[in-house]
Amino acid sequence: MQAEIITIGDEILIGQILDSNSAFIAKALNKIGVSVYQITSVQDDKTHILKALAEAESNVDLVILTGGLGPTKDDITKKTIAHYFGDTLKEDGSVRKNIEQLWKNYINAPLMQVNIDQALVPSQAVVLMNKVGSAPGMWLEKNNTIFISLPGVPYEMKALISEEVIPKLRTRFKLPFIQHKTFLTYGMGESALAERIETFENELPSFIKLAYLPSLGRVRLRLSAKGMDRTLIETEMQKQTDALLPQIKDIFTGYEEDGSIEEIIGKYLTKMSKTVATAESCTGGLIASRFTANAGASKYFKGSVVCYTKEAKMQVLNIPESLIDAHSVVSKAVAEAMATSVLALLKTDFAIATTGNAGPTKDDTQEDLGIVYIAIASKNGVFSEKFSFGNARIKVINRAANKAFELLQKEILKK
Amino acid sequence: MQAEIITIGDEILIGQILDSNSAFIAKALNKIGVSVYQITSVQDDKTHILKALAEAESNVDLVILTGGLGPTKDDITKKTIAHYFGDTLKEDGSVRKNIEQLWKNYINAPLMQVNIDQALVPSQAVVLMNKVGSAPGMWLEKNNTIFISLPGVPYEMKALISEEVIPKLRTRFKLPFIQHKTFLTYGMGESALAERIETFENELPSFIKLAYLPSLGRVRLRLSAKGMDRTLIETEMQKQTDALLPQIKDIFTGYEEDGSIEEIIGKYLTKMSKTVATAESCTGGLIASRFTANAGASKYFKGSVVCYTKEAKMQVLNIPESLIDAHSVVSKAVAEAMATSVLALLKTDFAIATTGNAGPTKDDTQEDLGIVYIAIASKNGVFSEKFSFGNARIKVINRAANKAFELLQKEILKK
Repeated sequence: MQAEIITIGDEILIGQILDSNSAFIAKALNKIGVSVYQITSVQDDKTHILKALAEAESNVDLVILTGGLGPTKDDITKKTIAHYFGDTLKEDGSVRKNIEQLWKNYINAPLMQVNIDQALVPSQAVVLMNKVGSAPGMWLEKNNTIFISLPGVPYEMKALISEEVIPKLRTRFKLPFIQHKTFLTYGMGESALAERIETFENELPSFIKLAYLPSLGRVRLRLSAKGMDRTLIETEMQKQTDALLPQIKDIFTGYEEDGSIEEIIGKYLTKMSKTVATAESCTGGLIASRFTANAGASKYFKGSVVCYTKEAKMQVLNIPESLIDAHSVVSKAVAEAMATSVLALLKTDFAIATTGNAGPTKDDTQEDLGIVYIAIASKNGVFSEKFSFGNARIKVINRAANKAFELLQKEILKK
Repeated sequence: MQAEIITIGDEILIGQILDSNSAFIAKALNKIGVSVYQITSVQDDKTHILKALAEAESNVDLVILTGGLGPTKDDITKKTIAHYFGDTLKEDGSVRKNIEQLWKNYINAPLMQVNIDQALVPSQAVVLMNKVGSAPGMWLEKNNTIFISLPGVPYEMKALISEEVIPKLRTRFKLPFIQHKTFLTYGMGESALAERIETFENELPSFIKLAYLPSLGRVRLRLSAKGMDRTLIETEMQKQTDALLPQIKDIFTGYEEDGSIEEIIGKYLTKMSKTVATAESCTGGLIASRFTANAGASKYFKGSVVCYTKEAKMQVLNIPESLIDAHSVVSKAVAEAMATSVLALLKTDFAIATTGNAGPTKDDTQEDLGIVYIAIASKNGVFSEKFSFGNARIKVINRAANKAFELLQKEILKK
């Protein structure tokens, strides 16, 4: 079964918003064995949407559309779908009831005609009830292709995908089994890695694909398999994993399917009943923010001191002014003092500290742009490393955070 | 002039990575008057790429491809382009020299044949030199359509777009003028807003489009105009802006083109020589991280205390245990004490504090899931508000951060 995702909205095509809906839908479809053949983003334009629908119908079995279902004039998806199906719009009683309930319970504004009109759907459509918003999902079929239209608001779309679309697809079709295993590696480039595992790659069975995904100091290696025989796939993927792992042992940090590196660290810490804190200068709270994005972070993450000025380092972390003046704020000595200080202040088992020049200017530091010191403190003491992360601010901040997690993970696993 | 962006890579179609390249390219093209007709993401598959190239050629004047130019086996873009053009690959001397330089200066690994092979390009291609990576950009033409192939690594792609592609397009074509103006509004729903400005919308000239972009408690209103007559567009956009602004004065917080709300706040604070700090519980460092993502943040952002546990609030911010016990950790009293405390600790002019239940569990707090208190402290005192942000963790955290910026901005503008 092949699918196409069509996202509708000028805001995507002028680069005003990032299309995160497609990635969510693609992931959800993939998990149940539906391959995504193509993702297409088109303008809020009737002719263009009609053309995209016709092309998708000729290529795939399932078309999922998002966007253009709002109550305002630029939202034309519903009318365009009705046109494509030679259908007319009629009010759906259950959707109208849902809208009236939403307004009664949550919305502090009068219910207007444009809102009531959101209960209009093509007469051939099966409604997928949107419990968290006023635009309903719709399921239509034509010449063996299924068309599903969903609102573009991410949490409404996500609820409909998880609660309506995926269960309905699973009930109706016998779907193949898809398995991905993504090996996170740090510290070796794509081509050196490819050379190292060349024999492994050449000997892979034809139904397993290997992909290299390089980004900011790491390469993710993804094995993907697909087929109707679940046992065969699972057995073979395990066999290939066992063959690959010893060859990349020195650079392997975990599986992406187990979550991001901070999630993996969170699981280790929870299991060990250990805690962590951060003292962040150049990363500005990003490490804390990535820890706390995960549910259950309060079990192992105690807090962070983001000290963006020299004074903050002195006032909150009690770093002596003389130390900062002697070594400069971006230095091994200051990074290590920050880590040791926050470890003691928040009484944790581990601490991360970062200090560096994210740019674009050097300000009053003595180091070059992109230089970052990362320190890890624990009850065994403190150590730090110096890195050079280039001269693009966001890249420096993100690479520093990635590297900090990597160093912390190594330190935790030492025990 | 119409463009299509084609991103190549299975990782996008299985939802493993978010396609942020397209948004960057779309924004850059839009700025110089090139409309993006469609964004298409396709698999690492020769037949599919060839089909996408042919379709794009029939629809647009400019095709920009990203991805699939790496040194490994799954990177097939270059060969596929050569096939599409009936061309062969030959080594480009300047690219080879660039690769050798990169390895000599930056890469701590031997230069391998797969790396040298990255100097192979279709013989018809004009090379766009990639100074920060080994995969060159390529510019080819066929039947009045320009095909530009760029590496998928974001910072390499960005450098090539900014330094090579955009200047070359500007030199070669007389491009129309495009202007967007996006009004950021908070606190009113899409349909109520649409009703309020209905007359304004109906009276817009045909070359100006209005779009509603709702997300997490705010609606962005975007006016877009396009045409060859720059003066006409600028005059008319100014006229419409002047007409719209008084109608949304109570909910307007700024223009998106001036940057994100945290950037706008940063500009105000810099101009006023004022400073800010944050004390974050449920937002976990996100507010600090958003402030510090912007260059120049050290001028106005002093730091943050991320206190994720009761102890951290007591130890770092000196919140009395009795106060926390009397009111519970998620309360007006604690939020205001956090804001006042961090204001004093970091000696700033303004402070933001957040405390709430991001979920998924309530833990030991007395408030419901999604309840967040946000406090703003300044030399005029402290105030706080209570919000209910739903029950999805990431949404609660992000809405809380957005709302905190909004409250701070209002407080700053009071003066």
